[in-house]
Amino acid sequence: MKKRNRLQLDEQGRLKHFLTIEGLNRQLLIDILDTAESLTSISEQSIKKVPLLRGKTIVNLFFEASTRTRTTFELAAKRLSADVLNINIQASATAKGETLLDTLRNLEAMHCDMFVVRHADSGAAHFIAQHAAPHISVINAGDGQHAHPTQAMLDMFTIRREKGEFHRLTVAIVGDIRHSRVARSQIHALSMLGVEDIRIIAPKTLIPTEPDAFGVHVFHDLREGLRDVDVVIMLRLQKERMRGASLPSEHEYFQRYGLTEAKLELAKPDVTVMHPGPINRGVEIDSEVADGPRSVILQQVSHGIAVRMAIMAMAMQQRPPETAEGERR
Amino acid sequence: MKKRNRLQLDEQGRLKHFLTIEGLNRQLLIDILDTAESLTSISEQSIKKVPLLRGKTIVNLFFEASTRTRTTFELAAKRLSADVLNINIQASATAKGETLLDTLRNLEAMHCDMFVVRHADSGAAHFIAQHAAPHISVINAGDGQHAHPTQAMLDMFTIRREKGEFHRLTVAIVGDIRHSRVARSQIHALSMLGVEDIRIIAPKTLIPTEPDAFGVHVFHDLREGLRDVDVVIMLRLQKERMRGASLPSEHEYFQRYGLTEAKLELAKPDVTVMHPGPINRGVEIDSEVADGPRSVILQQVSHGIAVRMAIMAMAMQQRPPETAEGERR
Amino acid sequence: MKKRNRLQLDEQGRLKHFLTIEGLNRQLLIDILDTAESLTSISEQSIKKVPLLRGKTIVNLFFEASTRTRTTFELAAKRLSADVLNINIQASATAKGETLLDTLRNLEAMHCDMFVVRHADSGAAHFIAQHAAPHISVINAGDGQHAHPTQAMLDMFTIRREKGEFHRLTVAIVGDIRHSRVARSQIHALSMLGVEDIRIIAPKTLIPTEPDAFGVHVFHDLREGLRDVDVVIMLRLQKERMRGASLPSEHEYFQRYGLTEAKLELAKPDVTVMHPGPINRGVEIDSEVADGPRSVILQQVSHGIAVRMAIMAMAMQQRPPETAEGERR
Repeated sequence: MKKRNRLQLDEQGRLKHFLTIEGLNRQLLIDILDTAESLTSISEQSIKKVPLLRGKTIVNLFFEASTRTRTTFELAAKRLSADVLNINIQASATAKGETLLDTLRNLEAMHCDMFVVRHADSGAAHFIAQHAAPHISVINAGDGQHAHPTQAMLDMFTIRREKGEFHRLTVAIVGDIRHSRVARSQIHALSMLGVEDIRIIAPKTLIPTEPDAFGVHVFHDLREGLRDVDVVIMLRLQKERMRGASLPSEHEYFQRYGLTEAKLELAKPDVTVMHPGPINRGVEIDSEVADGPRSVILQQVSHGIAVRMAIMAMAMQQRPPETAEGERR
Repeated sequence: MKKRNRLQLDEQGRLKHFLTIEGLNRQLLIDILDTAESLTSISEQSIKKVPLLRGKTIVNLFFEASTRTRTTFELAAKRLSADVLNINIQASATAKGETLLDTLRNLEAMHCDMFVVRHADSGAAHFIAQHAAPHISVINAGDGQHAHPTQAMLDMFTIRREKGEFHRLTVAIVGDIRHSRVARSQIHALSMLGVEDIRIIAPKTLIPTEPDAFGVHVFHDLREGLRDVDVVIMLRLQKERMRGASLPSEHEYFQRYGLTEAKLELAKPDVTVMHPGPINRGVEIDSEVADGPRSVILQQVSHGIAVRMAIMAMAMQQRPPETAEGERR
Repeated sequence: MKKRNRLQLDEQGRLKHFLTIEGLNRQLLIDILDTAESLTSISEQSIKKVPLLRGKTIVNLFFEASTRTRTTFELAAKRLSADVLNINIQASATAKGETLLDTLRNLEAMHCDMFVVRHADSGAAHFIAQHAAPHISVINAGDGQHAHPTQAMLDMFTIRREKGEFHRLTVAIVGDIRHSRVARSQIHALSMLGVEDIRIIAPKTLIPTEPDAFGVHVFHDLREGLRDVDVVIMLRLQKERMRGASLPSEHEYFQRYGLTEAKLELAKPDVTVMHPGPINRGVEIDSEVADGPRSVILQQVSHGIAVRMAIMAMAMQQRPPETAEGERR
């Protein structure tokens, strides 16, 4: 934990790399949310640009294809006025036998400033941050089943916008918790921000092996777990896993764990429904719920731009002036 | 017609989406040509940039690959100072099972401003415009066999540049009219701008089923149809269709419908030769004609940038200052 | 030679296209190095941008995939504030049967300003420059086994930075000289800049058929060739060739021609080790040498940005103000 902390923060305790929620502290998460708040208006105004990262070079280093995540980071970077390079590493020099570290050394030598890393292996962004030159910031855009911390932060931003605070909330995460980097990062962030009742709801085969380590309450029955929750976060069902033995049929999954309006009645009347997307309609969530008044799924996408702008700007030690002037919410 | 009109124009009758020539009006087409005229000089000056769309995000949403069309829209957008996102939708989230509408909702939530849509299905751009959020403009960059209106407008721009006006012209379109979205949009635009003698020249199998609906004169003999024309527009022969029964051999096609200098003698002496490109040399057009003094094929490409800049700026309600000041031709 | 000269230089002897070192002159190479020197600081400062090519459109026209080379040109162009279009020509209109020249004509008509060309055929960039419109500059980013002149110039820049001058140096190039466009361009540049002792070291099968034409000293024994050299440039071993009869096994190649610390003892004590990358560790170069204190392999990558910025700016007749003011080194 300590070591990770030292890797992510500089000597003054400011954000340097953003790899995982673990090892960060409550105040830093609040700072990210506040900075994102001050940047939200950028994407809503007519000229969607601030010069915070003008002349900086940000590399989208994607070892795993993802149009959606790549797009949000590219947009966030462009709205900060940075130059963006998209590198699909499968098609690049590593195919010619160059090692990953040699690829990094080369991008550093080109005076790139930031690597946004997506990789199928847990720990990849961490490994890259450990080996990067001192002037480089690394942002984890999803590594294996380990972490997806920018997704977790945009979820926290959405919850704060909806509920105003964290302490008195009950938040349930539903779906394949065991294999989900999103869930792992969400649980750490919710816990750090003071949510007292965090629930995970899933069939036994999709619960992490040591759920107690996360300090969460485990439910196998969706109806039971939804009782009186303030926020329910549905996870995307990776259909690939359906083919393994670990899951019932898609239809049966929907019967037991799919979120419908009827089941949602058990939650608080002002319950907020979230999903990291892309959604599988009729598998983990009914269209009526996804498109209904309690869903903030599209707001999550909007907030994703502001939160990623905030994290990128902070990692480069460039804060928007309003934040510096203490205009925080 | 009325409905389409309402979709493409806002309440003040200004351009909102650009999906098809049908349902627009003569004055709006003239406005586009005038605006393009005032933007032509941008691409010719040393610094090829105007800040009309600075801070806007334009998404090239291509469901069908097309380097050439994508490139012209990307250049036009960049010269208007917009940020451009290229999304190849085959490789994106729809492959993960996300529906088209969910993809749209997500791009809207990211505060994108404009979708430039290319799709193999007729009506796709129209469908997207119908379902897009109010702040989004949709530009049709070619949908199935239905329409390719920016191509038609650059052709009109080229004709006006060459001939000065439309009323007294005879314009012939030669080739696979039946399956051509380009021809369909050209016929509507020529007619709306007042061209009285519009001819289509093709073998019977390539004539639309109801040519009368278009108010055109039908010819099956190229020599006959070319007599005294002011403008001849050759269409690209889709070689894929050759393999079907509907066409003779490539050689025979050239004999009967290929444009040569000899056949061109039948047209007016100052005839203008056009082609949307890319050309099949020796199939629908002889190299001598394509590269000859009456060909304006490359000028069409140049004009394509200015016309697309004009349409994008107008759809975003951003007109170049010169136009606003009434400096129209 | 004369003809090539006329193609690469304009009537005032200024750079127009950059295709090959042959036919250029010593002063021009020095000018490139001096301009690159004045641009080096750009990539090191906080805002890595100069407006030298603002509003210009640069097309990366890659007929052969290369993430690394494409990336360096894209970064160089963006740091000069140009707009960049990446065109993968395999996937473009030529696949629809459009000829190369028609593709060029179209890009010219779009008012593009510069083509950066990579092609598997020797002479491709030359052919394109011969047929390009007068306002276009062509930069050769590697053509077949012919030339890779920007790589050679960044190598010259690195040597001058390390050694201060060229005249008294002994420079050895090691590896597959016969098939290497990099080696060919390096030999011409070294010779033009006054290096008197140029050595090539390779097995007989990898020596050019007429080495005397290059005015170099040929060695087949690495130890012998390395004796008292100031600079050693290792070439990448194209593993594809290993499968042919022309090369021994990878292991045997390393035994005979791989650069190790032990062999490097034979060179001058302050010898500089270079490699165009990407390196094959343990094939042509030992990791201890590649990562050691005498290696400048990563500096070469950094210098590659500045040198490419210089060449692009000069070909567009846009020099940085410092250079114009005579602040040359």
